[in-house]
Amino acid sequence: MRIDVKKCAALLKEQDNILILTHAHPDGDTLGCGFGLCRALIKMGKKARVINADEIPAKYSYLYNGMSCLNFKEDYVAAVDVATENLLGSLADTYSGRINLCIDHHGTNTEYADNLYLRETASACELVYEVITELGVQIDKEIANCLFTGISTDTGCFRYASVTASTFRIAAELLECGADNGYVNRVMFETKTKTYARLERLAIDSMRLYCNDKVAIMKVTQEMYKSSGSNEQETEALAPLTRQVEGVEIGITIREKPDGTCKASFRTFETVNAAELAKLFGGGGHPQAAACRLDCSVDEAVELIVQKCGELVE
Amino acid sequence: MRIDVKKCAALLKEQDNILILTHAHPDGDTLGCGFGLCRALIKMGKKARVINADEIPAKYSYLYNGMSCLNFKEDYVAAVDVATENLLGSLADTYSGRINLCIDHHGTNTEYADNLYLRETASACELVYEVITELGVQIDKEIANCLFTGISTDTGCFRYASVTASTFRIAAELLECGADNGYVNRVMFETKTKTYARLERLAIDSMRLYCNDKVAIMKVTQEMYKSSGSNEQETEALAPLTRQVEGVEIGITIREKPDGTCKASFRTFETVNAAELAKLFGGGGHPQAAACRLDCSVDEAVELIVQKCGELVE
Repeated sequence: MRIDVKKCAALLKEQDNILILTHAHPDGDTLGCGFGLCRALIKMGKKARVINADEIPAKYSYLYNGMSCLNFKEDYVAAVDVATENLLGSLADTYSGRINLCIDHHGTNTEYADNLYLRETASACELVYEVITELGVQIDKEIANCLFTGISTDTGCFRYASVTASTFRIAAELLECGADNGYVNRVMFETKTKTYARLERLAIDSMRLYCNDKVAIMKVTQEMYKSSGSNEQETEALAPLTRQVEGVEIGITIREKPDGTCKASFRTFETVNAAELAKLFGGGGHPQAAACRLDCSVDEAVELIVQKCGELVE
Repeated sequence: MRIDVKKCAALLKEQDNILILTHAHPDGDTLGCGFGLCRALIKMGKKARVINADEIPAKYSYLYNGMSCLNFKEDYVAAVDVATENLLGSLADTYSGRINLCIDHHGTNTEYADNLYLRETASACELVYEVITELGVQIDKEIANCLFTGISTDTGCFRYASVTASTFRIAAELLECGADNGYVNRVMFETKTKTYARLERLAIDSMRLYCNDKVAIMKVTQEMYKSSGSNEQETEALAPLTRQVEGVEIGITIREKPDGTCKASFRTFETVNAAELAKLFGGGGHPQAAACRLDCSVDEAVELIVQKCGELVE
């Protein structure tokens, strides 16, 4: 059932022992939502904790620093920034079919939760900001940093066309609540580990243009992880680079998995719907950023994708 | 004389035939201020035009599109985002000593103008936004795009710690006045010409770490312009890259001039004051972004700078 922010806050007010699920291969938005909401619920005197199927990259540690990890049997399960149950990764095995509440901003949400608060905002953290405000919790510095992180990371630091006046106003409020934008943005956008800097150079070198230079494809192989000392956790920042060369309408990053299959990330401008493109391969996402898994090698994936893209841009 | 926004607007209201000076080697902030203010003055029925000592890069053309270039003898001269008269480049020969009004956000402003409206905001366009509002001019889509461009470019698209709640709120207002943030940010941040992409790769390859990896220096030589097909106009985006490697406290870009001398750009975090560092070499700027000219070769500049930086970071 689709609900509004008032109902969403009312449901949370009634509950205790709340488990918050975030999506696998976690990013700043799902974690910012999760820990921001969790901190707010704890401030209300409730028990709450956040879980994820994968390891949380160290750069996000400030999101949960100082929180005690509460152990309790959950009475209520909420998912944040999770469009489909299978995006929960291994958590889907346990929680599929028993998620009470979902707060999400993906138009492709499959309405798997009993109650869904959804609007297509630039970041899911904007919705969690509304929910926390509706709950009457005073946003402190820690909550502000969580929510600012989600907004900042999901918008490429306010670069994308998805940013609205409301996004900027929430960001302003969060700064006044103590969000340390300089710190968050430096950690998220201005800090390359030496291993990532090496991987980025290899990935940029692998980039090739197709379809009259309207499609750029970058490859990230297991071999590149090995020679750079980097790993898949560090690849989040690569996808936007593919779309930056003049004339490119579809930027694609194909990452090789340890089992030889791969994952493709699509970045587009208004001329092409990335979610629809990803859907052709069984994936999904946003109009300008989407992804899919492919049960084939990187080079086979390039061939398949170039063919489909050719039909779209020509 | 230092003045406030009310006095600044009052002075402009009294005047006509206003010439607006922008700083040489123009960037989005000085041009956004210049054309934003110029469009507002023209809307008030005044004659105004913007001039610059250098050629304005083509990517900024939307700032002045549709404006008729008015020919008139100026009665009033205003400078925007210009900290010192010598930053006017060749325009200083004509206008030095006869600038009536300056709107600026550099703490290092030398107070060369008869009247100075200065506050250390993230971008000078925030001040011009205040002035236009005070003038009572309704901000239209074109003015909004000018001001948004300055705010966005001077903050690295809202990345830097200089961004305040007020910066975000002005950005929100500008979106509501019609600023096309998606377009502006794509042109300013998400579009690399093929020549720039080649130059960037060469410049990144030239980057070396010094002083226990706390200082990164990137070189941009005339030879690199030649082999990439790029030019100095395209180098604006390089400087922030130097600061991005983990552990680096001072990121420096040294650009070789056609006459064999060079210009150094400094980017720092809170630990080092870039303006003070640049001042050691006769330059200036902001606490986290500053520059100077050096009357020596690139390699001699590296040596000189590494020595001074070593004293600062160790």
